[in-house]
Amino acid sequence: MGDVSVVEREMGLSPEALSSRMTELEAKVLELEARLPEDRVSIVVFSGELDRVLAAFVIATGAAAMGQQVSMFFTFWGYNAIRRARRLSGKSLMQKMMALMSPRSTKGMPVSKMNFFGIGAKMLRAMMKQKNVSSIEELQQLAAELGVKFVACEMSRDVMGISEQELREGLESGGVAAFLADALKSRSTVFI
Amino acid sequence: MGDVSVVEREMGLSPEALSSRMTELEAKVLELEARLPEDRVSIVVFSGELDRVLAAFVIATGAAAMGQQVSMFFTFWGYNAIRRARRLSGKSLMQKMMALMSPRSTKGMPVSKMNFFGIGAKMLRAMMKQKNVSSIEELQQLAAELGVKFVACEMSRDVMGISEQELREGLESGGVAAFLADALKSRSTVFI
Amino acid sequence: MGDVSVVEREMGLSPEALSSRMTELEAKVLELEARLPEDRVSIVVFSGELDRVLAAFVIATGAAAMGQQVSMFFTFWGYNAIRRARRLSGKSLMQKMMALMSPRSTKGMPVSKMNFFGIGAKMLRAMMKQKNVSSIEELQQLAAELGVKFVACEMSRDVMGISEQELREGLESGGVAAFLADALKSRSTVFI
Repeated sequence: MGDVSVVEREMGLSPEALSSRMTELEAKVLELEARLPEDRVSIVVFSGELDRVLAAFVIATGAAAMGQQVSMFFTFWGYNAIRRARRLSGKSLMQKMMALMSPRSTKGMPVSKMNFFGIGAKMLRAMMKQKNVSSIEELQQLAAELGVKFVACEMSRDVMGISEQELREGLESGGVAAFLADALKSRSTVFI
Repeated sequence: MGDVSVVEREMGLSPEALSSRMTELEAKVLELEARLPEDRVSIVVFSGELDRVLAAFVIATGAAAMGQQVSMFFTFWGYNAIRRARRLSGKSLMQKMMALMSPRSTKGMPVSKMNFFGIGAKMLRAMMKQKNVSSIEELQQLAAELGVKFVACEMSRDVMGISEQELREGLESGGVAAFLADALKSRSTVFI
Repeated sequence: MGDVSVVEREMGLSPEALSSRMTELEAKVLELEARLPEDRVSIVVFSGELDRVLAAFVIATGAAAMGQQVSMFFTFWGYNAIRRARRLSGKSLMQKMMALMSPRSTKGMPVSKMNFFGIGAKMLRAMMKQKNVSSIEELQQLAAELGVKFVACEMSRDVMGISEQELREGLESGGVAAFLADALKSRSTVFI
């Protein structure tokens, strides 16, 4: 019996040796697990056109319906998708000009091609309605109901001087670090 | 001997205890494996301009050549890249207008900047030819040969009233769920 | 004692059997580890407008500051972001035209919307300065300091006939395979 134990120990076959190998491997597996992507999708909404914003919300609601945690990060022209009113007071001259050239809300968003002063956007909306495809406003509502996280980019907001009253409710505020914190854990990240 | 066994059992060092820890760890590792990204790349082709579609096919063929399973999901203006003819019959007035303003096939795709009524696109094609860079049509052919999966977005097709005869052969049809099913397992997903 | 050993061996409970299961599992875990995404972010800079290039550098510097290895792959119009001078000698007629219509450096980059012959870009720069947001040139400098890798797309360079003297220093040169080598190991890949 004594001899067997010696051999086992030499070959790393003693219960203690096996257990310690196992402990090491368990720790390694835990470490790997922490580095795996989560069930998560991150979307940067940089563009402010109806067609592109639609694509963003179709992906967001689709992913949320498939059980993914979805974060949408609205920046630059993407603010068009979360604006609900226009306030000029408190804005600098340039911020006012920027605001005046931006749509008041999603209703005024142009399409990225063939817009023709808004006719293209109206056409796209009408065509979608005819086919019973959800409108951008319905998709936004659905996204909120499905728990999609809406984050408004702090830097854009600060640069453009956008006040809280101009934006829809239920928005979080964050910078690039907030976006990356989610994106780095995501299965897919898209920039739209 | 009896004493050793008692100690082993108490410290989880009995063969049974070690084996059951191992069984648990094996199950955990299998579970983690299922959550790892596959050798897979997913591309949304939303844009319909020559330069952007070229970038999509360069990435698609490059990834396929590197052993990745590649899915291309064509939506909105991205239909320009998979159209081969124009049919107006069966379309509503708005769908007809949309079709008339879209290129008949890849040959008519504009560039996203400096298009100047098609001169920019012709220039880019000529410059690529001079440098023996594959044309978009050659890249599409190559992608098909390398097994790249082409998926046409059902919603876009329905809204724009595009018939099967207008599209190239070998396309699958799918919605956002089909795209996400691939994207969520991909190493990289890009939206172009 | 002999009987116990037989039973242990039959049930895979012998030290040798346990050790060999463990060895197998250790190999499996190593294999999975190699397939995990690295702490890495890849960015294709396809667009050449100030606002989009800004977004790319904000993400790049943010990710680098969070400890990620960042690769930026400049292609097509994205060359605007790494150009520092314009040389016409040695270019074909079409390459000259292309060069003349492109900005000489980041200073001349337009914005993607509301550019109005450069007024929009000047306005955006002024608004950013007022809010003490880093300029694109400062962000580029920061990115370089943080070790962000800048890769210039060989194909674009060749097609557009861009010489080394026209580009900023510290660039690597690479094709789609170089981009994919990084992207396939990345936590997030974005196409801007």
